[in-house]
Amino acid sequence: MKKIRAAIVGYGNIGHAALEALLEAPDFEVAGIVRRNPEDRAGIPAEIAVVASINDLENVDVAILAGPTRSIEAQAKEILAAGINTVDSFDIHGQIPALRKSLGEVAKEHGKVSVISSGWDPGSDSVVRTLMEAIAPKGITYTNFGPGRSMGHTVAVKAIEGVKDALSMTIPVGTGIHRRMVYVELLPGYELEKVAAAIKADPYFSSDETHVMQVDSVDALNDVGHGVNLVRKGVSGKTHNQMLEFDMKINNPALTGQVLVCVARATMRLQPGCYTMIEIPVVDLLPGDRDYWVAHLV
Amino acid sequence: MKKIRAAIVGYGNIGHAALEALLEAPDFEVAGIVRRNPEDRAGIPAEIAVVASINDLENVDVAILAGPTRSIEAQAKEILAAGINTVDSFDIHGQIPALRKSLGEVAKEHGKVSVISSGWDPGSDSVVRTLMEAIAPKGITYTNFGPGRSMGHTVAVKAIEGVKDALSMTIPVGTGIHRRMVYVELLPGYELEKVAAAIKADPYFSSDETHVMQVDSVDALNDVGHGVNLVRKGVSGKTHNQMLEFDMKINNPALTGQVLVCVARATMRLQPGCYTMIEIPVVDLLPGDRDYWVAHLV
Repeated sequence: MKKIRAAIVGYGNIGHAALEALLEAPDFEVAGIVRRNPEDRAGIPAEIAVVASINDLENVDVAILAGPTRSIEAQAKEILAAGINTVDSFDIHGQIPALRKSLGEVAKEHGKVSVISSGWDPGSDSVVRTLMEAIAPKGITYTNFGPGRSMGHTVAVKAIEGVKDALSMTIPVGTGIHRRMVYVELLPGYELEKVAAAIKADPYFSSDETHVMQVDSVDALNDVGHGVNLVRKGVSGKTHNQMLEFDMKINNPALTGQVLVCVARATMRLQPGCYTMIEIPVVDLLPGDRDYWVAHLV
Repeated sequence: MKKIRAAIVGYGNIGHAALEALLEAPDFEVAGIVRRNPEDRAGIPAEIAVVASINDLENVDVAILAGPTRSIEAQAKEILAAGINTVDSFDIHGQIPALRKSLGEVAKEHGKVSVISSGWDPGSDSVVRTLMEAIAPKGITYTNFGPGRSMGHTVAVKAIEGVKDALSMTIPVGTGIHRRMVYVELLPGYELEKVAAAIKADPYFSSDETHVMQVDSVDALNDVGHGVNLVRKGVSGKTHNQMLEFDMKINNPALTGQVLVCVARATMRLQPGCYTMIEIPVVDLLPGDRDYWVAHLV
């Protein structure tokens, strides 16, 4: 069986995790890694090509975009135009419809496939949310994140004056409400009280219960574990009080890398265009043919 | 917007629940109910047609087959050949691939769509199992059912000599193992001890922990609530100990009826052939267009 040749574009946490998932997948081969400085091969197995441009790799079927969310649109357009499918874990919820539209046009023009927003939220959680909405059409769904690090909140804290290093943990308190536990290392001469007040006034934190604590080493707290608890109580037909719940406790980059590899596989089975995960049959996330999985999973 | 015209074939618990779900769905109209004795209109709203054959109904887009599992194949073939899509909740796991193949041939021949095995297990649980398998490709999934009534086990008990009425409850004890709690009303002159021994020797019960209790009224215990706990602990990429879990506590026929209506909707969006739920994009279970749901659920 011909293997799917995948390139990884960007080699941070997610790129590394995507590489591990590709190396474990029976139906993929790694075309190479694309990064700004291809001389930097730290931690990359010797047999894997590292290049500065995807055009330096041959016969790439699909590119896994593992760089920052804000770089994805431009990158994906260029790669689709070069005749290569793309997948990403674009995670700004409000901008997903626009990205889907814009990449959809380029993908169709070049007869290629893009699957966007394919991490765990947005991503696999979206599939569960959609299924829950379908089987209990009236009701409320709550997505409770954590405990786990929030990238966006951590970056916001790091931008505050006096902060040397920071970590913002998201703690679920139920019904979609979250507590923020912020751990900071301070620069010399700054007082915790003032820094804490600035953090609590920031739009990222001002509407949530926020606790700020000073620590000696933020690095010592580093743990990429995360979680989610998705709950829906709703109505099927005319019957109320249907209780549905989905829970995960996971290594965050590892799950994101794995989901990206699953949707990279799915791109090979879709008609040209741009998709989110709720638009893809779940069986197409798996290797091999449908008959096998129908017999084993249905 | 033109509504989807659905017929319900068979009017037991599932047929009744499917009717309730159709009446609540914004994009459906009820073409009618097909049942052996169309004179029996008990509990059916006066405005709903009740007929003996689906051919007595006009412009039916899709038939919801709500009769016994063993009647589904013959019924579906006949209805597909008449140019009407079919959906069912066929639940004999081992026979699903064969049914999919046989209905697939008839469906393609007549340019129609059949979606089979669309209750909650097989059905919505299958979607979750498949998603879990994809995002943590190595590991073990356990499906823990209950507490709730097992139809198959209840029927097996009723067939045993001396049993007047029976109820077999499935109790999850973890890792896919189940305890059977059997409640029986006995016919005069029979002893609990002997009946219990016969039940425990039956192939339906012989490999499970089984408790048999005599009650005055089985009917007094009747509750259509059910549940499932789907657990997977597995590996994403090279990262072990990813913990995934899906839980439901639901009214069983209400959920099955709702899922059948969801897949009836999806039949209108699929290419001719026969499908299981894992082969359908989850967004197509929902009414209206994809863009709305992408914006709201991804």
